Amino acid sequence: MKINSSLLLSNDDLLELYVDKFKDVRFKAENIIANEPVYYFISSDGKLIRPQLLLAACNMFGGDLDVALYPAFGIQMFHNFTLVHDDIMDNSDVRRGRPSVHKKYSVNNAIISGDLMMIYAYDYLSKIDECQLREVFNNFNDTAGKIIEGQQMDIDFEARMDVDEVEYIKMIGYKTSVLLAESLRIGGVIANASITNKELIYNFGLNLGLSFQIKDDWLDAFGAREKFEKKIGGDILQNKKTMLFVKAWELADEKTKEKIKALMTHEDEDEKIENMLNIYNELGVNDLIENQMTEYFQKGLSYLEKIELPEERKLSLLDFAHKIYNRDF
Amino acid sequence: MKINSSLLLSNDDLLELYVDKFKDVRFKAENIIANEPVYYFISSDGKLIRPQLLLAACNMFGGDLDVALYPAFGIQMFHNFTLVHDDIMDNSDVRRGRPSVHKKYSVNNAIISGDLMMIYAYDYLSKIDECQLREVFNNFNDTAGKIIEGQQMDIDFEARMDVDEVEYIKMIGYKTSVLLAESLRIGGVIANASITNKELIYNFGLNLGLSFQIKDDWLDAFGAREKFEKKIGGDILQNKKTMLFVKAWELADEKTKEKIKALMTHEDEDEKIENMLNIYNELGVNDLIENQMTEYFQKGLSYLEKIELPEERKLSLLDFAHKIYNRDF
Repeated sequence: MKINSSLLLSNDDLLELYVDKFKDVRFKAENIIANEPVYYFISSDGKLIRPQLLLAACNMFGGDLDVALYPAFGIQMFHNFTLVHDDIMDNSDVRRGRPSVHKKYSVNNAIISGDLMMIYAYDYLSKIDECQLREVFNNFNDTAGKIIEGQQMDIDFEARMDVDEVEYIKMIGYKTSVLLAESLRIGGVIANASITNKELIYNFGLNLGLSFQIKDDWLDAFGAREKFEKKIGGDILQNKKTMLFVKAWELADEKTKEKIKALMTHEDEDEKIENMLNIYNELGVNDLIENQMTEYFQKGLSYLEKIELPEERKLSLLDFAHKIYNRDF
Repeated sequence: MKINSSLLLSNDDLLELYVDKFKDVRFKAENIIANEPVYYFISSDGKLIRPQLLLAACNMFGGDLDVALYPAFGIQMFHNFTLVHDDIMDNSDVRRGRPSVHKKYSVNNAIISGDLMMIYAYDYLSKIDECQLREVFNNFNDTAGKIIEGQQMDIDFEARMDVDEVEYIKMIGYKTSVLLAESLRIGGVIANASITNKELIYNFGLNLGLSFQIKDDWLDAFGAREKFEKKIGGDILQNKKTMLFVKAWELADEKTKEKIKALMTHEDEDEKIENMLNIYNELGVNDLIENQMTEYFQKGLSYLEKIELPEERKLSLLDFAHKIYNRDF
């Protein structure tokens, strides 16, 4: 399908384009044992938010979607690599409603297939116009390093109680937001967007990512169990420093802080979750979190508004942003 | 130091150039905890064979060494990444005479710092002329995938007895040789070598790599303990399928095969090593291995000879190849 650059596709069409292109993807490496976990993992490929953002940005700026599909797949593979390795480190046994790779296969298989996914990511990222390679790689390598740093911060925070909001925002900015922002920026690079527009779309993604991650934190504690394909309260069990926790610790009096501290080593899992949720409710962190999500979301939209393009070209991304913001899974 | 492209540098000078350039290297990612194992690992950076090969090839073809230094460092970082992750998977507690990363820090730190090293590798690899990026990345991504496949094969072989020579050569070809060959080829790409010359230098590296790895297998069993910075017999303890093992299994009668099988689960480590070495000696695999090393080494040299360049330009690589071949550590 050759797509005219002035044509605006709906998000559903963009997603269909992507799924069609890669539904039977086969990688160059031939080793069956090394590749099997890769195919297993991508057979349930999540919400595909990052590739959709990349394609939507490229489409908005009038770029060639046939080209953009490759880095879109590369970005998703990079995201997958981080999930497979993070699940080992976080001891998470479930991912997208199924056993995580290290659980279904082994830790060694998960390390290897994650490494392989990163290489595939770079391989697909490099299938773009030669004169855009340097810009994409310079940006992407920085972003990739930040994502790893974000995961390190997330792990480090588990052993700490006093993580403040600034540190927390930096951590989720690195761990989650920069890849959303980078996806959008690569879409812009491929479409030869102006420097200003690339900066604007990046900042749109950065703020959208922050609201996205805070929502993720919220869903992990308060989401509906059947829709959200992770165990509810998983973050609480792992002593993850979420925005809920950071806010609760900020608001708690000494007595409540003692209670929270005791919960860190509380052995009964259901009780631990229930007691922590009660503290969140008592302190009213729910409302505070919602305000924050809205703030970052609105800030993100303000960057999208500033992009020098007719409003109708922005509708897909605007629609997609709202979908992410309003999701309940 | 701006180096005239016609100037031929000695291997010592090339090594000095590299060490000088990167002795105080600082990476972009700022997180101290994520970076500390990286700095720890490169503070004892092994024999630096791959960067030396890359620089020597570039110098032989008259390329710009100031540019070649970056991918040389990138290749070494990629090699380091594989070692850090392999050590986790192989449960190897010692590397270059010091505790391996997962032993000194933790498995999580080793996963993260290995991931970071791979990103740094791609970052430095991309610091070359824009018009060479596609060629280098196309080649390198293939090579990188093969290296991961090689590690997977190596792990798979541990549980098997009947690994034959063809499989074994494929495994070490992937796990070890392709990166030596790729280092040389990148040196050629940077120096704008002809297609034929790039193929020849690649095949020189491939065969040199096979003789190198077979020597490595030999050293692990028969090397002098104080010089070789790994535990002697480590491969035997891990039931690694080395060229020694493959040859021994091929030559062994049924009774000896039973003895070898029993040794796989033998608990006393010193006895296991001693008994296996005795079997190797009885079967005379030592001589066979030496013949093989020589064959691959000579085959490698034959490719170097065919390169269309004055002989004096090949002297550094020839010298380096001999050094690798004759090493006793």
